Amino acid sequence: MTFETVSENKAFGGTQGVYSHASGETGTPMTFSVFVPDHADGAKLPVLWYLSGLTCTYANVTEKGEFRAACAEQGIIFVAPDTSPRGDDVPDDEAYDFGKGAGFYVDATESPWAANFRMKSYIEAELPALIAERFPAADMTRQGITGHSMGGHGALTIALRSPDRFRSVSAFAPIVSPLNCPWGEKALTGYIGADRADWRSYDACALIEDGARLPDILVDQGLADNFLEEQLKPELLEKACADAGIALTLNRREGYDHSYYFISTFMADHVRWHAERLK
Amino acid sequence: MTFETVSENKAFGGTQGVYSHASGETGTPMTFSVFVPDHADGAKLPVLWYLSGLTCTYANVTEKGEFRAACAEQGIIFVAPDTSPRGDDVPDDEAYDFGKGAGFYVDATESPWAANFRMKSYIEAELPALIAERFPAADMTRQGITGHSMGGHGALTIALRSPDRFRSVSAFAPIVSPLNCPWGEKALTGYIGADRADWRSYDACALIEDGARLPDILVDQGLADNFLEEQLKPELLEKACADAGIALTLNRREGYDHSYYFISTFMADHVRWHAERLK
Repeated sequence: MTFETVSENKAFGGTQGVYSHASGETGTPMTFSVFVPDHADGAKLPVLWYLSGLTCTYANVTEKGEFRAACAEQGIIFVAPDTSPRGDDVPDDEAYDFGKGAGFYVDATESPWAANFRMKSYIEAELPALIAERFPAADMTRQGITGHSMGGHGALTIALRSPDRFRSVSAFAPIVSPLNCPWGEKALTGYIGADRADWRSYDACALIEDGARLPDILVDQGLADNFLEEQLKPELLEKACADAGIALTLNRREGYDHSYYFISTFMADHVRWHAERLK
Repeated sequence: MTFETVSENKAFGGTQGVYSHASGETGTPMTFSVFVPDHADGAKLPVLWYLSGLTCTYANVTEKGEFRAACAEQGIIFVAPDTSPRGDDVPDDEAYDFGKGAGFYVDATESPWAANFRMKSYIEAELPALIAERFPAADMTRQGITGHSMGGHGALTIALRSPDRFRSVSAFAPIVSPLNCPWGEKALTGYIGADRADWRSYDACALIEDGARLPDILVDQGLADNFLEEQLKPELLEKACADAGIALTLNRREGYDHSYYFISTFMADHVRWHAERLK
């Protein structure tokens, strides 16, 4: 497997790196970032995954997320993948919410997406194996996952399908039910097909209704978020968790929008939430 | 004077705004950002200026600077101007280190720059008046100034020329002597002309040699900074301050480069340095 260091910069005592590799799942180069805090030789550190939202690459959270101070303080490795395959040979759509930048963390079954859009398998299997191989400080027995918007959907669904992999789960302004919002209906129809029964394993609320369980979940949601009512609908996750006995901490934040100004404000809270469960 | 709110986002309990106005000094629209922390009605907060480096706009530090947590904690307003006039009618140079994005915080006297490149007067007079008028929480009797690289040069020289305006001065990887580095020689020749005696009021070390004084200065400098030896030369500032009896705290930081990964790492230290002197 090819592996290339794109850049490494010292930050907050650790190393913020950007790396590229040839992905077998997507059939493309994939770029991701990893922050490794300063640590003693041979130390093993927990790993926190951050899945990004529509239109984003690894770069948005890496530049604007303000996670490094908290991760350095808590001794946590922070991994930020891309949101889709990239490249001139990858099929795309003109819309911002489908195609490149909008992988929705699914394995597509529909043409022409199925060949490259395999973000579920990429995040669930290929990239964790690469992290374990290339970052000896990463303790893959202690993983947490979070994400924003489409990436919050990714974090919740991946964790609900693999509860044994993650000790801690949170999200910023997540899409909680693709079955019940325009972004989700468009993406899952396009990637997975029209049979909505096939969507349930990609829907956090449906997964919970169908029996998936996590001990607890942290969600922050801005109340000035333009996408709150039509796309995000945290009340659906609130009901699903209440019915299932999952301890959901849902913080509704007055005045905050969908941007990285919101995410960065509450990032340190999320890192500490994960640290409490990972250490 | 026209004044336009480009955007306002809630962040860390306060408001991160971006604003545009028609500048009489530059003859162009100028865009800048202001973070105002949450505060009691009628409260007056100190103002910290941040001057950016070559190629930057207000946006680089606003997105990557990680100043908001510390400014919210300390109750400090943070103002980030652009680094030059902008627009199709403004003269430019193909190089990254001259023309647009490279105003060097001088009032140009040479053609064709003199009409628009008036960043000294813009930062020293026009923008402070606008801040005082438009941001009633800004306490203009308590100002501090910092900056990065070319903006560190700006912060040091503006403070040395107006010590009564600023209670606190710091810089990240500043150009400390344009008289003694290629960036400075190119820019000052181009903007001010070949008579090096005219440059001394735009050179922190020369200003100190010529009698300017500040009580103390904080500087952080990365030792893995590509520009350290040829352009930045902190040892020149160290000598000037030692000779003049100015208390310079010069932190040489092993492994850090010239990027915002370096700046963001030490930003909270600088905000606290200013807070101690502004409150």
